[in-house]
Amino acid sequence: MRLFHRHSQKIGMSPGSYIFLGEKKQEKVQLNLMDYDESRYEFTSIENVEDAFPSKDKKSISWINVYGLHEVEMMKKLEQQFNIHPLVMEDILNTAQRPKIEIYDDYLFIVIKMIYFDDETAELEVEQISLILYDNFIICFQERKGDMFNPLRERIKNSKGRIRKRGADYLAYAILDVIVDNYFLVLENIGDQIEAIDEALYENLTAEMANRINLLKRTLIHLRKNLWPLRELINMLTRDEVPYFHSSTVPFLRDLYDHTIQVIDTTESFREMVSGLMDMYMTAISNRMNEIMKVLTIIATIFIPLSFLAGIYGMNFDVEISSYNMPELGFRYGYLFFWLLVLLIGGGLLFFFRRKRWI
Amino acid sequence: MRLFHRHSQKIGMSPGSYIFLGEKKQEKVQLNLMDYDESRYEFTSIENVEDAFPSKDKKSISWINVYGLHEVEMMKKLEQQFNIHPLVMEDILNTAQRPKIEIYDDYLFIVIKMIYFDDETAELEVEQISLILYDNFIICFQERKGDMFNPLRERIKNSKGRIRKRGADYLAYAILDVIVDNYFLVLENIGDQIEAIDEALYENLTAEMANRINLLKRTLIHLRKNLWPLRELINMLTRDEVPYFHSSTVPFLRDLYDHTIQVIDTTESFREMVSGLMDMYMTAISNRMNEIMKVLTIIATIFIPLSFLAGIYGMNFDVEISSYNMPELGFRYGYLFFWLLVLLIGGGLLFFFRRKRWI
Amino acid sequence: MRLFHRHSQKIGMSPGSYIFLGEKKQEKVQLNLMDYDESRYEFTSIENVEDAFPSKDKKSISWINVYGLHEVEMMKKLEQQFNIHPLVMEDILNTAQRPKIEIYDDYLFIVIKMIYFDDETAELEVEQISLILYDNFIICFQERKGDMFNPLRERIKNSKGRIRKRGADYLAYAILDVIVDNYFLVLENIGDQIEAIDEALYENLTAEMANRINLLKRTLIHLRKNLWPLRELINMLTRDEVPYFHSSTVPFLRDLYDHTIQVIDTTESFREMVSGLMDMYMTAISNRMNEIMKVLTIIATIFIPLSFLAGIYGMNFDVEISSYNMPELGFRYGYLFFWLLVLLIGGGLLFFFRRKRWI
Amino acid sequence: MRLFHRHSQKIGMSPGSYIFLGEKKQEKVQLNLMDYDESRYEFTSIENVEDAFPSKDKKSISWINVYGLHEVEMMKKLEQQFNIHPLVMEDILNTAQRPKIEIYDDYLFIVIKMIYFDDETAELEVEQISLILYDNFIICFQERKGDMFNPLRERIKNSKGRIRKRGADYLAYAILDVIVDNYFLVLENIGDQIEAIDEALYENLTAEMANRINLLKRTLIHLRKNLWPLRELINMLTRDEVPYFHSSTVPFLRDLYDHTIQVIDTTESFREMVSGLMDMYMTAISNRMNEIMKVLTIIATIFIPLSFLAGIYGMNFDVEISSYNMPELGFRYGYLFFWLLVLLIGGGLLFFFRRKRWI
Amino acid sequence: MRLFHRHSQKIGMSPGSYIFLGEKKQEKVQLNLMDYDESRYEFTSIENVEDAFPSKDKKSISWINVYGLHEVEMMKKLEQQFNIHPLVMEDILNTAQRPKIEIYDDYLFIVIKMIYFDDETAELEVEQISLILYDNFIICFQERKGDMFNPLRERIKNSKGRIRKRGADYLAYAILDVIVDNYFLVLENIGDQIEAIDEALYENLTAEMANRINLLKRTLIHLRKNLWPLRELINMLTRDEVPYFHSSTVPFLRDLYDHTIQVIDTTESFREMVSGLMDMYMTAISNRMNEIMKVLTIIATIFIPLSFLAGIYGMNFDVEISSYNMPELGFRYGYLFFWLLVLLIGGGLLFFFRRKRWI
Repeated sequence: MRLFHRHSQKIGMSPGSYIFLGEKKQEKVQLNLMDYDESRYEFTSIENVEDAFPSKDKKSISWINVYGLHEVEMMKKLEQQFNIHPLVMEDILNTAQRPKIEIYDDYLFIVIKMIYFDDETAELEVEQISLILYDNFIICFQERKGDMFNPLRERIKNSKGRIRKRGADYLAYAILDVIVDNYFLVLENIGDQIEAIDEALYENLTAEMANRINLLKRTLIHLRKNLWPLRELINMLTRDEVPYFHSSTVPFLRDLYDHTIQVIDTTESFREMVSGLMDMYMTAISNRMNEIMKVLTIIATIFIPLSFLAGIYGMNFDVEISSYNMPELGFRYGYLFFWLLVLLIGGGLLFFFRRKRWI
Repeated sequence: MRLFHRHSQKIGMSPGSYIFLGEKKQEKVQLNLMDYDESRYEFTSIENVEDAFPSKDKKSISWINVYGLHEVEMMKKLEQQFNIHPLVMEDILNTAQRPKIEIYDDYLFIVIKMIYFDDETAELEVEQISLILYDNFIICFQERKGDMFNPLRERIKNSKGRIRKRGADYLAYAILDVIVDNYFLVLENIGDQIEAIDEALYENLTAEMANRINLLKRTLIHLRKNLWPLRELINMLTRDEVPYFHSSTVPFLRDLYDHTIQVIDTTESFREMVSGLMDMYMTAISNRMNEIMKVLTIIATIFIPLSFLAGIYGMNFDVEISSYNMPELGFRYGYLFFWLLVLLIGGGLLFFFRRKRWI
Repeated sequence: MRLFHRHSQKIGMSPGSYIFLGEKKQEKVQLNLMDYDESRYEFTSIENVEDAFPSKDKKSISWINVYGLHEVEMMKKLEQQFNIHPLVMEDILNTAQRPKIEIYDDYLFIVIKMIYFDDETAELEVEQISLILYDNFIICFQERKGDMFNPLRERIKNSKGRIRKRGADYLAYAILDVIVDNYFLVLENIGDQIEAIDEALYENLTAEMANRINLLKRTLIHLRKNLWPLRELINMLTRDEVPYFHSSTVPFLRDLYDHTIQVIDTTESFREMVSGLMDMYMTAISNRMNEIMKVLTIIATIFIPLSFLAGIYGMNFDVEISSYNMPELGFRYGYLFFWLLVLLIGGGLLFFFRRKRWI
Repeated sequence: MRLFHRHSQKIGMSPGSYIFLGEKKQEKVQLNLMDYDESRYEFTSIENVEDAFPSKDKKSISWINVYGLHEVEMMKKLEQQFNIHPLVMEDILNTAQRPKIEIYDDYLFIVIKMIYFDDETAELEVEQISLILYDNFIICFQERKGDMFNPLRERIKNSKGRIRKRGADYLAYAILDVIVDNYFLVLENIGDQIEAIDEALYENLTAEMANRINLLKRTLIHLRKNLWPLRELINMLTRDEVPYFHSSTVPFLRDLYDHTIQVIDTTESFREMVSGLMDMYMTAISNRMNEIMKVLTIIATIFIPLSFLAGIYGMNFDVEISSYNMPELGFRYGYLFFWLLVLLIGGGLLFFFRRKRWI
Repeated sequence: MRLFHRHSQKIGMSPGSYIFLGEKKQEKVQLNLMDYDESRYEFTSIENVEDAFPSKDKKSISWINVYGLHEVEMMKKLEQQFNIHPLVMEDILNTAQRPKIEIYDDYLFIVIKMIYFDDETAELEVEQISLILYDNFIICFQERKGDMFNPLRERIKNSKGRIRKRGADYLAYAILDVIVDNYFLVLENIGDQIEAIDEALYENLTAEMANRINLLKRTLIHLRKNLWPLRELINMLTRDEVPYFHSSTVPFLRDLYDHTIQVIDTTESFREMVSGLMDMYMTAISNRMNEIMKVLTIIATIFIPLSFLAGIYGMNFDVEISSYNMPELGFRYGYLFFWLLVLLIGGGLLFFFRRKRWI
């Protein structure tokens, strides 16, 4: 896991300098333009950023999508045309931005994170999505082209639900809703992993298992780091002081806020569960150690004294010099007595272990 | 345990689409209607939802109960007839809702969780109960038919207590009271389990015991996740800003709030106790390991040197070549001296262990 | 320890039903009446509750004491005569109540817990004390007759201190003061136990010791659960908004509040100390395990190779077939060389252990 | 460590009774009087408390010092002469008081703790210092005579700094400053101990070391218990609502507050470091156990199979009955082959351990 | 690591005495003066502090840099000339100051910490930087000459960005921005170390590794101790109540605040990760112990019983006295049967271990 987005290349630079701070996730910047009102729907993949400029003055709702952030020239044109503050543009380009909301005179600026969960590595992939909400259009900056918003586009196209009758603010809400719903998807995947580990724990007590638990723990730390500012952001939207959102959209935002809280609650529960898994793992290790030691102790405790006994009668004291020297060797039933003694000692120890409940 | 309610089927859908998100817990949706005032009491099991519509305009108090949420048509009729907001209906259908309260012009909407404890699996079962409180009637949506409210119904029927003299708000309070009291029942069961584990801990130091402790821990995490929003919800009710509750009902709500706090306090105490149990378990494991190692060490430490001794006198150095070679074997009392040595070494080691307090 | 007061018998009942929820701690309900002003003092043990009714209209200060809560009839008479709200009476009877304060038109209602520490079991015993403070008299409900208030009564009788010159509010303060002072007594006892365990820890590393530490931990959890609402309660009293307390009593209440904070501070410190004891215990267990393993390892590591050596010279290879077979057996000083080798190996290993600081 | 100041002797007593609750730390109560203004400086050790009374009406600044609190008569005289509230006097005498500030009409009452660190026992010694700040004089009660304030007295005497030009409030600030600076001294000592333990940890892995870490932990708990009310106290002073402090003194108080915060920050860091030390200790114990077990396992694993081998050729099967019985014994190079086998097995196991990185 | 800045030499001194409390980090105090406006830029290394005085009355922006704090005379001159409050000067000289901001009539005083990370020792080096912001010039006190601000100076010189067109407040922001950006650099280094440890953990399970983890933990404690007051400080700047900052600079300060929050978030995540590393380390130690014990147990459990068997047939019972004595020795295939038994027992135990999944 890349623990930290490199920042060092920027130290000492003028704030507001246009440098794309992130990995280039696709080759060429792509542009989409969706334009609709209650009666009309149009979706075009455009070549030049200038084709998006007329949206500014149309009455219909427009949704301009920019995939890829590394073409500085295009960014500058957008900045000029749509009157975007230099600091806003800098935040869009710096993909290590914290989720936040900023109110400007002409528009509302929202930075938010889309989260994907990589099932293989149990790590999060984070994509920064920047929304600029004007009165009747939205510009949406993504790091790469994805398909998360396709169902939403379908919905608009097919005129399902209330979305075609409503303004750009409702579109912004719908976009945020898709993003927050994606957090549920991530939680589902993490939940599956927790259950899988939970079931496999006793079967497979390897270091690799501890590693998987620790990876999940880190992923949850990472997730949580993104959730608190998200919560703050959406909470701010539900309060009245934010313009650009009609009061009829506020109940939907409140619903969104409820979802965010639910995501946070579940994340916190998962964190506790994962730390419980780690405890269980440690306990299982201890139990297994106990098991191992018990086997060793039982075997050693029984056979070490018996070996001593056998050792005694293997000694070569001279039986002929005196009858004090190892007279047992000359007994008629000496060997049988020896075995009797072996059985007595062995049986006694087994009884002792049984009473201690070791076997 | 299902860690997480599936949500994924809904991503990208229009908010407010009527999809029942939960398991279907009974085959057919059932409807009840209770209608009473100070002098009259009527309870009917109705077939068609339309039979409940007249309650809207009656002066007596009505309690409409809907068991099962999967009949979309019925829901739509209720929505139209009782003027329910689409987002409210969506919340009723999504049984993964967080407990909450929402104030609308015509009614108060309350989502709350009924909790059952499954003694076998030590897991919680959660049923979502949605209440819509109008001026003089209540619609109550449950996932399945249960008997928790029967004593309350009996009380109304037998005109015991103050309930028949009071309005729909008091009925709402009474329903909430039953739900909160149920939390005490769950805590009682959990408390019993804690005591049972506490008593059995030293007898039964198995991995299964650790598992039971961990399950209880998870159950308490799960319970707590439901309690904080419950507390918030009831706290809001006690404050003056919520309409639909008469001021004479407020002391009862305050009482309810006290109960909720008590449930939370006890849950927190239980959490600490359960984590104490885990500590005790780990300590007991360590103690047992110590015990095992002590037995092994005592036996091995005594008999390994003695075996060495016996081994020496089993060697075959040629005693006839020189009198330097193992003269002990030719001693008259060699064997007796050997045993003396054995007793000395064994006794000395036992004394050493006694002084170290190992035996 | 009873972890939880049973509540289940009440689910579904009408709130306000008079059911005594607690154990009956003494056979018969008893009543006391103390009546005093600056010049007069009277203390009577009364038979019928009606004998207490005249206090209501007297100008002198009266303190009515009810020991035992299970006589429903008497409670009903008190309720009627002294105008007690049904919910208040219910709270008095439910001894699992949380400490709290409620302001009514005629009186102030205080629920508070008297705590005793059982030195044998290291558990808390909790008695609920309910105070109803009127303008010039107090009704005090206790679960059983105790002697905690005797010094206070002596003080009033002997007219020591300011108490005879002051009103019922100061009497209420004095009662609360006795109760809070009792918490110090409990802390003293717990502190003694912590010290005792601390001193005995290394001598007595048994599971029983871990158990005692865990019991103390639970007792502190239990104590703390009672302290936070107590603090809240007394804090509320010190603020101006509570009537029934003269402003001249407020500095005393503030003093009481300081004491409560001190009790909480000490409880928190004790909690940390007890968790430190548990750490020490675990460390001591680990240390002892190390000790045991060291003894085993030293003995085994020295004697196992030596036994091997002795075993070699006990082999029966035919020395007569060839001079390659165990020629050592035929050496003149073979046995002496063997012992030399034993001393060399043994000494070398001892030197190795010494260098590793194991011995 | 005395965990808790005895309080029990006071239960049930009238609040405000003059009982000295603390240990008598010096035989005889002593009194000092310092009197100065910009031009004059006088320091006298006085015999009778009455000699201090004239200070009350002088215009110059007076600092009355009382060392020792157990002479009740003197306290009563001071109380009457300087109009001290009985509860204040009680707080002065009860040396288990929590640090606090109280505003009265004629004076400001400050209780604060002077802390000393005993390097031998790693424990804190706490002395309660009570300040009563009037318009132009201060009464300062200490438990015993110490030399902490000597540099301050020297400063006043030598007229260094601003102190002679300022009022009694600045003197009070200067006294508080000495007390807070003393906390830094204590932290320095604790810091030295942490470093000492840190360096010695690996050398000296004894139970005594764990004990020292635990003692430090307790000392920090103890220190912290005193710091939070101190912080609160000084914060209150910096706010405008406290009279008796001129606005020109407020920046100095703010400086003092900064120091307090720094003390708290450092204490918290130390707490984390000490808990880190405990972790390191546990890790080191585990590491050592691993080390011990590795030695045992290597030795036992090599020599136990070899002993078995030697044991085989020590068996007495009758070689003359059939050539199937132990033919190896009769081989010409049997013994050499045995040693070859020993070297092979031993070498193989050593290689195995090397590959596992145990040696 | 020096855990604590020595303070003790100052106890009892007059507050405001000019004593440099820190290590002298460079031999001679050095002075720089930068002077610029939109059209002009001048940078001079000055000898005497008096050369900086004219900046006070110029209209252009001046940045006076003082490297080294130990020349008291120069400090006094600066104090007089620029009207610096004695407490401010004391704070500048005491390099153990907490980051803070103080508003004076003529200037704003900011104390802030520059952080460097020493890769070798994994420790932080902290340099205190004090800024005094006047209307049109800044005095900046550093402990030693460094090159962190060089890129900023280059930017001003080359007139890049907006900086030349703006006032002294923007310069102050730019300086703070460099300092905060440096925290990212430190986090990058710490992140690298975490990754390095994470990768090496399983390879290298030595005490030294535990030590490195613990060092990182301490460094993060140290870092965090500096971050919270930094956050507070910058938060205060973004609020309107601070003068000396033009409203056009506030968005930049808000950006800076976002960065600070991000630093804190990352620090907290790192803390959790490092504590996760410690858990992993402990788990790995336990796993390895299990591994070691398993090898020992398998070898010992197989060979100890076999050795006993071999010991039996090495006994010297007199076979000639009776046929009961060790008849096996005289069997024709006795030795072969012995080996069969050995294979049976050994195989059986291997099967048992395989079933237990130990091998």
